[in-house]
Amino acid sequence: MAAASSSSTALLRGPTTPLRAHPSRLSLRSHRVRFSTVRASAASAAAAVTSSSPATSSVVDTSVNAIRFLAIDAVEKANSGHPGLPMGCAPLGHILFDEIMSYNPRNPYWFNRDRFVLSAGHGCALHYALLHLAGYDSVKEEDLKAFRQWGSRTPGHPENFETPGIEVTTGPLGQGIANAVGLALAEKHLAARFNKPGNEIIDHYTYVIVGDGCQMEGISNEACSLAGHWGLGKLIAFYDDNHISIDGNTEIAFTEDVVARFEALGWHTIWVKNGNTGYDEIRAAIEEAKAVKDKPTLIKVTTTIGYGSPNKANSYSVHGSALGAKEVHATRQNLGWPHEPFHVPEEVKKHWSRHVPDGAALEAVWNAKFAEFEKKYKEDAAELKSIISGKLPMGWEKALPTYTPESPADATRNLSQQCLNAAAKALPGLLGGSADLASSNMTLLKSFGDFQKDTPEERNVRFGVREHGMGAICNGIALHSPGLIPYCATFFVFTDYMRAAMRISALSEAGVIYVMTHDSIGLGEDGPTHQPIEHLVSFRAMPNILMLRPADGTETAGAYKVAVENRKRPSVLALSRQKLPQLPGTSMEGVEKGGYIVSDNSTGNKPDLILMATGSELEIAAKAADELRKEEGKAVRVVSFVSWELFEEQSEDYKETVLPSGVGARISIEAGSTLGWEKFVGSKGRSIGIDRFGASAPAGKIYKEFGLTVENVIASAKNL
Amino acid sequence: MAAASSSSTALLRGPTTPLRAHPSRLSLRSHRVRFSTVRASAASAAAAVTSSSPATSSVVDTSVNAIRFLAIDAVEKANSGHPGLPMGCAPLGHILFDEIMSYNPRNPYWFNRDRFVLSAGHGCALHYALLHLAGYDSVKEEDLKAFRQWGSRTPGHPENFETPGIEVTTGPLGQGIANAVGLALAEKHLAARFNKPGNEIIDHYTYVIVGDGCQMEGISNEACSLAGHWGLGKLIAFYDDNHISIDGNTEIAFTEDVVARFEALGWHTIWVKNGNTGYDEIRAAIEEAKAVKDKPTLIKVTTTIGYGSPNKANSYSVHGSALGAKEVHATRQNLGWPHEPFHVPEEVKKHWSRHVPDGAALEAVWNAKFAEFEKKYKEDAAELKSIISGKLPMGWEKALPTYTPESPADATRNLSQQCLNAAAKALPGLLGGSADLASSNMTLLKSFGDFQKDTPEERNVRFGVREHGMGAICNGIALHSPGLIPYCATFFVFTDYMRAAMRISALSEAGVIYVMTHDSIGLGEDGPTHQPIEHLVSFRAMPNILMLRPADGTETAGAYKVAVENRKRPSVLALSRQKLPQLPGTSMEGVEKGGYIVSDNSTGNKPDLILMATGSELEIAAKAADELRKEEGKAVRVVSFVSWELFEEQSEDYKETVLPSGVGARISIEAGSTLGWEKFVGSKGRSIGIDRFGASAPAGKIYKEFGLTVENVIASAKNL
Repeated sequence: MAAASSSSTALLRGPTTPLRAHPSRLSLRSHRVRFSTVRASAASAAAAVTSSSPATSSVVDTSVNAIRFLAIDAVEKANSGHPGLPMGCAPLGHILFDEIMSYNPRNPYWFNRDRFVLSAGHGCALHYALLHLAGYDSVKEEDLKAFRQWGSRTPGHPENFETPGIEVTTGPLGQGIANAVGLALAEKHLAARFNKPGNEIIDHYTYVIVGDGCQMEGISNEACSLAGHWGLGKLIAFYDDNHISIDGNTEIAFTEDVVARFEALGWHTIWVKNGNTGYDEIRAAIEEAKAVKDKPTLIKVTTTIGYGSPNKANSYSVHGSALGAKEVHATRQNLGWPHEPFHVPEEVKKHWSRHVPDGAALEAVWNAKFAEFEKKYKEDAAELKSIISGKLPMGWEKALPTYTPESPADATRNLSQQCLNAAAKALPGLLGGSADLASSNMTLLKSFGDFQKDTPEERNVRFGVREHGMGAICNGIALHSPGLIPYCATFFVFTDYMRAAMRISALSEAGVIYVMTHDSIGLGEDGPTHQPIEHLVSFRAMPNILMLRPADGTETAGAYKVAVENRKRPSVLALSRQKLPQLPGTSMEGVEKGGYIVSDNSTGNKPDLILMATGSELEIAAKAADELRKEEGKAVRVVSFVSWELFEEQSEDYKETVLPSGVGARISIEAGSTLGWEKFVGSKGRSIGIDRFGASAPAGKIYKEFGLTVENVIASAKNL
Repeated sequence: MAAASSSSTALLRGPTTPLRAHPSRLSLRSHRVRFSTVRASAASAAAAVTSSSPATSSVVDTSVNAIRFLAIDAVEKANSGHPGLPMGCAPLGHILFDEIMSYNPRNPYWFNRDRFVLSAGHGCALHYALLHLAGYDSVKEEDLKAFRQWGSRTPGHPENFETPGIEVTTGPLGQGIANAVGLALAEKHLAARFNKPGNEIIDHYTYVIVGDGCQMEGISNEACSLAGHWGLGKLIAFYDDNHISIDGNTEIAFTEDVVARFEALGWHTIWVKNGNTGYDEIRAAIEEAKAVKDKPTLIKVTTTIGYGSPNKANSYSVHGSALGAKEVHATRQNLGWPHEPFHVPEEVKKHWSRHVPDGAALEAVWNAKFAEFEKKYKEDAAELKSIISGKLPMGWEKALPTYTPESPADATRNLSQQCLNAAAKALPGLLGGSADLASSNMTLLKSFGDFQKDTPEERNVRFGVREHGMGAICNGIALHSPGLIPYCATFFVFTDYMRAAMRISALSEAGVIYVMTHDSIGLGEDGPTHQPIEHLVSFRAMPNILMLRPADGTETAGAYKVAVENRKRPSVLALSRQKLPQLPGTSMEGVEKGGYIVSDNSTGNKPDLILMATGSELEIAAKAADELRKEEGKAVRVVSFVSWELFEEQSEDYKETVLPSGVGARISIEAGSTLGWEKFVGSKGRSIGIDRFGASAPAGKIYKEFGLTVENVIASAKNL
C-alpha cells in the first residue's frame, strides 16, 4: 500500500522531465514506472501524457534563448522594464517550467499544481515568457507585445489578479519569498489534514526565485526563519546570485554570507556555481533539494545579470532599463539569434507544445484520484472541496455567537476570540495566529493545537515577533486556495511593521483577516509607542481593504461575518484591550451597512444632533446622548460608524436616512486622528479625537486628559 | 605620539572599572596608567576621579539585587510593566553602568558619552533603576514610584524626549538595535572626520541589549547586516537569551541558530553561558569584544527571565505583568532582600555615589581635550561644534539653489538632488543615502564618497534594500548629535516598509529627512505595487511629522529649508519621477506657510473658484485656471497646498486670506486618495484624486484614464 501510494504521488510531478538532460539523476526505470501508473489510473489521459518527448540539448539552448529574447523584446517594445534578470535566469526558468513543474496551462487554477513565485518580481518578463511558451491563454504574443501598457495582461510587475498563471503579486521586494512560505505552509497543512495512505491528493512543491534585493529585506529573514522552523521540505528557493542591484555591485552594501545565514535558519543549502549554462548542475540541485524532506532548500544559483548582452551584462545598467536597439542587436549577434522580435522558433514551439496535453492529463489523473478519495472519505472530501472552491459552508454564520445588552461587558478582543473559535468550527479553512501576542490578541483556537513541523494538521500558527513576514505568509495562504481563510494578529499600532504586506493583501485580493487589538490609548500604560493614533484613517484611505472597529459583541460578530464573506477584500478589525458594555441597538445588519442608527429619539429624520462614534467610543456617545435627551430634552441620534468603506457603498437614500443633509449639528468621537471625519461631520460639525501622540498612564486617566469623555461631548454639543 | 594618543583615548572609558572583580583582565598597572593620565591632563578633576573605589563582590551582589528590586517595586506599584527582563539582566546592567560605561550623570548630553540602548524596551524598569543608582536627576525615587503614570518621567517604554539619559525611543521591537547601529555609525563617521593623531576627541562605544523579540524582527537582521558590512567595531550588542517570549518558550517559533546567523552577517560572537551570576564571564566578554576592532560583537548572554522569583522565573508570566504581592514577598525571601520597596542599601548608594564626580571629571577631561583641539584645528572645531550643538551655520539656506519660471522643467527628484548637494556644502552634519535606489531617488552627494568600512569619513551611505533598517539607523544618527542631519530615500510607496521607524522619528523628535521619490501614478509602468495612493494622507494624519509635496524647484528648495530647520520634527518629501515645469508664483516663503496663493485674478478676496493642488498636480490646476479665466472670464485662485500641517499652524487670519470662508466653490486635485480634502474643499467643493489602486502603463495614459486632467478640472468647475 505504502509503495503504491508513493508511486501514485510521484506521478503528479515531473512526468515531462527530459531523460537525456540528466540521465544520472532520473533513471529510465523510475520514469517508466511513473508513466505506467498514469496509464493504470487514468487511462484516458495516458495518450496525452506519453506524448512527452525528451529535450535535446540543442532544443534546450534554443528554448533558453527564446525566453531571453521574448523578455528582451517585450521590454524593448515597452521601452520600460527589467531585462537583466530574465536573461540571467532563463536557464533556470526553462528547467523549472519545461522539466520540473506540474501544471495545467489550460487551467491555471488546478488545485494540485506546483506553485511558482518570482519574488524578484521586476523580472516578470521571464515569467510571462514562460507562461507564453507553456501555452497559457493569459499570455499570448499580443500580450507580450502589450507589456506594461494600459489594460494589458502583462503589467510591470506580476499581478495575480491580472494574469492567470501568476500566483501572487510581487515587486515590492521580499514579499514573494514570504508568500512562498505561506503557499508551502498551506500545502503542508492541507496534506497533513487530508491525505490518506494510498491517496495523497495534496502533494505539490513551491518554487520561488529570490534576488539580492529580496535577501536584503528583513521580511525575507523573518519568513525564512519560520520556514526553517516549520521544516517546509517542499519549499525550494532559488537565490539568483548575480551580484548586481540597482546601485551597482552588491559589494557596496551586501557582503554577508547568505548561504551561512540560511543554514543558521535551518535550511538545506546548495550552490550552483554556473547558473548561466550549467543546466545539469541546476537539475541536480533540484533533485537534491527534493530529496531533503524535512528542511526547505536554498539553491544559490550564481548567474550573470543580462547574460548575453556583450556590453551591458554584469552591470546595473541592464537591471532596470531596456537594452536599447543597438545593444539588442549586439545581443542577437552574440547569442546567435537571427529571429525577428517575439519570434519563437518552430522547434521550441513544438517542444513546449506537449505541456497543454500533459497538463490536462495531470489534472485528469488528479480528478480521478479525487473522485476515488471522495468515494472513500465523504466528509473529508466535502471539507476539502469547500477549501478548493472557496464556497463557504451554508449557514456558517449561524455559528457566530450572539449577544444582548444583558451579556457581560467585555473587551472586543475577548469577544473576537469567541467569534474566532465559533467560526473555526464552521469554517474548515480558517487558520492563523499571532506575532507572539496570542494571549494578548486572544487569537488561540481552543479546539486545535499548534501548526508545527510535526503537527502540521493543526491550525494555530505561531508566527513569533515577525509581523511583516506574518502578513505576507497569510497572503500566500489565502492565495493558495480560495477557501483558506488566514487570520493574523498583533497590536494595532504594529500594523506599521506589516503595512507593505497588508497593502498587497488589498491589491492582490487576498482576504486575510487582520485581528488588531489594543486599538487606541485605551491600552494605557504601554504608552505612545504602543498607542495607535493615525492608523484608522491610514487604512480607511487604503483601497480595497475594510477597516472595521466594532463597539461590542454584536458588532464584533458582525465584523467577523463581513470579514469572512469578503474573500477578495482583506479586513482589519480594530479591537479594544479594555472592557466595553454590550450596547442596546447594535446589530450585525448595521455592521454590514458600515454606519447605522444605534439609538434615536427624533422624529421625521430631523434630530437636533447626530453623535457618531466607533468602537470603544460608541459607549461615550450613547451615554452623552442619554444625558442630552434627559437633561436638555434634545432629539439626539447616535450613529455607529463601524466601517466607513461599507457605509460609502450604500445608496444615497440610505445615507440620507442616517445622516440627513439638513442636520448640520454633528459630533464625532473616536480615540484616533480626526482627519477625514470632516466628510461626515461636515463644515458645521465637530470632531473629538486625538491629533497628538498618546501617553503612558492608566487608560481612564488618558481618556480624561485627552477629552474623550461624556462631559466633553455634552459641552461640545452645547457649543455647536 | 601614537602611544600617548592611545592612553589618552583610553582614559575616556572605564576608569571606574573595579579591580577586584576581574583582576585577570584589567591589570592594576593599566588602571593606574589611566588615572595618572587623568591627573596629568585635567588636574582639577583628578580628586573626583580618584574617589573611585573598586567593588567588592558582596557589594556587586547587593547592587544587582537592588536593581532587581527597584524594577520589581516600580512594576508592582504601577501594577503594570515587565519585571522579567530587569530581573534577568540586572547583572549585565550593573556591570555596564557601574564598571564599563563612560557617562556623566549630571550632563546626560555630554557629547562623548558611551551610548546605551535597551532595544528590548519593555524592560525599561532596568534602565530607570540604573539611571537612578548612577545619580541622574531624571530618575529620582519619586520617579520610580510614578512608573507608567500620567506626566511621569518614567513612561512604560524608554522615551528619549521624556527622560534625559535615555538615548532613543524603544519598545517596538527591533528598533533599538537598528538605532544602535546608527549611533555607532555616527561615532565611526565623526571619529574618522575629526579625530587627529594625539587628539581623538570622538571615541565612545555603543552598547545595546536585544531580546528574543528583537532578534525575530526583520529590521534587526537588516541593520545588523549593515553593521557587519560597515565593520562597526565599537558596537557591542548583548543578546538576552532567556528563551521566553510572550507566547511562551521560544521553541514554538524561534529555533534558528542566532549566533551562527550573526557570524554570517560578519559579526564577532561570544557566548556567556551564565548571565545570571557569571559576572566575570560578562566582564571577560566585554573585554574581548573591545579587543575586536573591525567587527561589531554579539554577546549572547544566557539568562533566566525573572531570575529570583521562585514560582515565576523562566516563564512567560513574569514577562509582562507585575509579580503580585505574594510573589514579590517570595522573591524577597528567596534573594534575601529584607528591605522596604524602593529602598537602596547604604553600601550600594555609597558605591554608586562615585559616578557623579567621576562623570564630571570625565567631561572636564574631555572639555580640556576639546579646548586643545580647538586651538590647533579651528575650522574642524567649528564644524564639530555645529554638529554637537545643532546650531545650523548662519545663512546656510543661502546655499540652496534658486529657480525662476524660466529655469528648465525638471523632475522634483532631480531638483531635490540639486538642493541636497548644495545643502551638503553648507551643512557639516548632512549625510545619508538610499535603499539601493540612489540613481532613481537622486540622492548621491557628488562632493563626497561612500561611507564604508574603510572610508567612514565619507557621507554617502549605501543602505542596500533595507528600508526599515535605514529609517531606524537614521533615527540613531539624528539622536547621536543634534547637528547630524540624516536623510534617507526610497520610492514613496515603500514608506510602507519603514513606517514603524518613521513613526518613531516623529515621536522621538528625530529630524530625519525622508526623500521619497516616484510619488504617484506619475511613475508609470511599474504599476500599482509601486504607485502610492493613500500615503500622503497617511502621513498627514501622523503626529509631529511634516508631509511636504513640492511642485517645482522653488518649492523643493523651500521644502528643504523647512526640513533642515525642523530638527525636532522629521519631514517627508514627496517628489516626482516625471518632469514638471517651474511655475510662476511659487515661493519658498509660501512653502513655509504650508498653503499659499500661487496665482489669482480675483479682487477683494472673493474669487469665483479656488483650485488647490500639491506637487505635480499644481501644474494642472494652474493650466485649468488660465483657461477658466480666459475662456469663461472667471476669477480663479490657485492655491498650492505643499504641507497641510504647516498651513494648520498659521493664524486664522492668514487662513482666511487663502481660503475665504465665503467661497464655497473649491476644487482640489491631487494624484492620491481624496480622503481628508473635505477639510479644505468643504461640503460644496469637489476633490479630484485617486481612490483606487493605480495601473501599469505610461504615466500620461494613467493620468488621462484616471481623470487627472485640465479638462476634468474645467468640467468639474462648470458643474460646481
